[in-house]
Amino acid sequence: MFSERIQRLSGSLIREILAAAQRPEVISFAGGLPASQCLPELDLGSVPQSLAQYGTTEGEPELREAIAREANKMGIACSADQVLVLSGSQQALDLAAKLFVDPGTPVLTEGPTYLAALQVLKLFGAEIHAVPQHADGSLDAGEFGAAIDRVRPAFSYLIPSFQNPSGACYDEANRKRLAEVLDTAGVPVFEDDPYRALSYDGEAPAPLVSHLKKASFIYAGSFSKTLVPGLREGYLIASPDLYPYLVKLKQAADLHTNRIGQWYVARALNDPGYAAHIDKLRATYRAGRDVMQDALARHFSDLADWQLPRGGLFFWLTLKTPQDTRKLLARALEHNVAFMPGEPFYPKPEDGIGHLRLNFSHTAPERIEEGIARLAALVRG
Amino acid sequence: MFSERIQRLSGSLIREILAAAQRPEVISFAGGLPASQCLPELDLGSVPQSLAQYGTTEGEPELREAIAREANKMGIACSADQVLVLSGSQQALDLAAKLFVDPGTPVLTEGPTYLAALQVLKLFGAEIHAVPQHADGSLDAGEFGAAIDRVRPAFSYLIPSFQNPSGACYDEANRKRLAEVLDTAGVPVFEDDPYRALSYDGEAPAPLVSHLKKASFIYAGSFSKTLVPGLREGYLIASPDLYPYLVKLKQAADLHTNRIGQWYVARALNDPGYAAHIDKLRATYRAGRDVMQDALARHFSDLADWQLPRGGLFFWLTLKTPQDTRKLLARALEHNVAFMPGEPFYPKPEDGIGHLRLNFSHTAPERIEEGIARLAALVRG
Repeated sequence: MFSERIQRLSGSLIREILAAAQRPEVISFAGGLPASQCLPELDLGSVPQSLAQYGTTEGEPELREAIAREANKMGIACSADQVLVLSGSQQALDLAAKLFVDPGTPVLTEGPTYLAALQVLKLFGAEIHAVPQHADGSLDAGEFGAAIDRVRPAFSYLIPSFQNPSGACYDEANRKRLAEVLDTAGVPVFEDDPYRALSYDGEAPAPLVSHLKKASFIYAGSFSKTLVPGLREGYLIASPDLYPYLVKLKQAADLHTNRIGQWYVARALNDPGYAAHIDKLRATYRAGRDVMQDALARHFSDLADWQLPRGGLFFWLTLKTPQDTRKLLARALEHNVAFMPGEPFYPKPEDGIGHLRLNFSHTAPERIEEGIARLAALVRG
Repeated sequence: MFSERIQRLSGSLIREILAAAQRPEVISFAGGLPASQCLPELDLGSVPQSLAQYGTTEGEPELREAIAREANKMGIACSADQVLVLSGSQQALDLAAKLFVDPGTPVLTEGPTYLAALQVLKLFGAEIHAVPQHADGSLDAGEFGAAIDRVRPAFSYLIPSFQNPSGACYDEANRKRLAEVLDTAGVPVFEDDPYRALSYDGEAPAPLVSHLKKASFIYAGSFSKTLVPGLREGYLIASPDLYPYLVKLKQAADLHTNRIGQWYVARALNDPGYAAHIDKLRATYRAGRDVMQDALARHFSDLADWQLPRGGLFFWLTLKTPQDTRKLLARALEHNVAFMPGEPFYPKPEDGIGHLRLNFSHTAPERIEEGIARLAALVRG
């Protein structure tokens, strides 16, 4: 009755956990929500009436210009006509899967990688292969190249900056070597970069795609971490060979992105106060990160290894004595503390036994200590 | 390099025509845009700040309740938990294609049918079969049943009310017989119903799905024709067996629909002035329709046959001497008048030679006469 892909349609663990973790008594490190007090004011009183009408699939010209300008500052040589405004950056995954993936198509990711990317790629039937990240937060270019030779992926999906879930941020040299591998192999890359602005110890290195000389690329960005997630505004920038297909796929998916959100984001990006807003976000999240780091140092030093994340929204713990953290989660919820198990972030969950992802942006600092202590007691058994 | 489906990715003729028709000197009957003066005020000054945060995939509770209440009034027995808010009703097509269509999957539509539905279904690889509508604006239930027996479709896509492009609106008896055929065959139906509110000579009969006794269904509605297309807000109501899959597919596509638009639509639906707003829309579009009917009677009586549309946004002309209207369009654009050729509205364009779709909602009444006269001169050769 249904299409073949429905057999591969997985429910989102995130979804069920977020539902369970919404009881106010639960201290939840599970989600990835921005802190509500960091969300800018929804002042929409001066939206132009002309935006009530249908818009263009590509997006509002002012917003595309602003996005291209920001991308140029980051080091991506692109023009506004390579920018496609999206209904949130999750949509870039849907469009890329449509562009590249048939049942059985090989795709190369990092291990671990973004859970919802795995879900979309699997839905379309991708055979997903992961190159393991190293504990120091690098991705070995030799191993990456060998995996490309072995797997022959239709494209590679990478999150080089403050990765969800691992927090890893590849340094400039690492990015250059990965870009060389992609250029040599002629493999397109999807660089997912929603966390770039959330850096706490200096700026992230230039995007990996800025080092490409000829490989095709999709670079995806989000305004849900820096501005207003409820508006659902994201974007992609694509190499000119891919862009026309992505526009047509976007049109078939939902015609165009809502124009009110596009107006809001364009105004924010063009506002002289935007940098100060980002600084405030960084200060708030840095404080949360530091509180969690202190709490982890007190309670988890003998239980797990981790790197201090220099950006993003998550700590990624590797238990010294691995256990299935999906079972740990069930016990944790009984004790009113929630986290995200590590297994679902791997194409093969059995490759990811014994990791916890802990969000530090949404829990008030004064509750972080209590939640981490509670969690450590559970890990200790 | 690309997925197999990209071979089936067609550009939208609508897109290119709308681009060409945007020169102010062109009198365009091509698009389906609402009249800008009919769009309600974008008063968004009192949007609650809480809507800045991420929302749920299903949609805002207040909006789902309001949609279910309106659906109940139409005769659809459903509850709010069968309502999924969408980023425009186009998204319902994407989700339905994902749910039902593998390469080669048979799907049954009307001939003609909505162009963008054909594009999405083809993209996913559907084998589309069309049951011809009769000139009186009915769909013969016997022919429909025979086509189901022959084709064995995974689902049937129908637009029973003021169809785009034909304007046909099936009467109650016709709907009941079609529903019986679907129930007997156990074939799911997708009822696309964006034009229902735009009725000019009495209300449209109850939706076809309201007559189903057991067949699975997706009923899709839009707020782009009655409220604000730029907000991209639509919805679907699904039978309980389909709904959970559609929610997961929506989540994978874009997480959730923008919340500001949802708030705006919920407020409008709950506003005591909503009925008066719809009455005003109807009066405006009815006047445009009547002006076009008069102009057609003057200029096209010897050139084409048509039915007066009792709702929706389009006249559908059948030329007495068929010619390829795609070629006619090229000449029309040289003479600064635009329309939509009929051929792309058929799964096999060669089945649709000699039809023109003419929109009456977006051109000022005083220009309609001039445009129709110009077009008639071109048809006459």
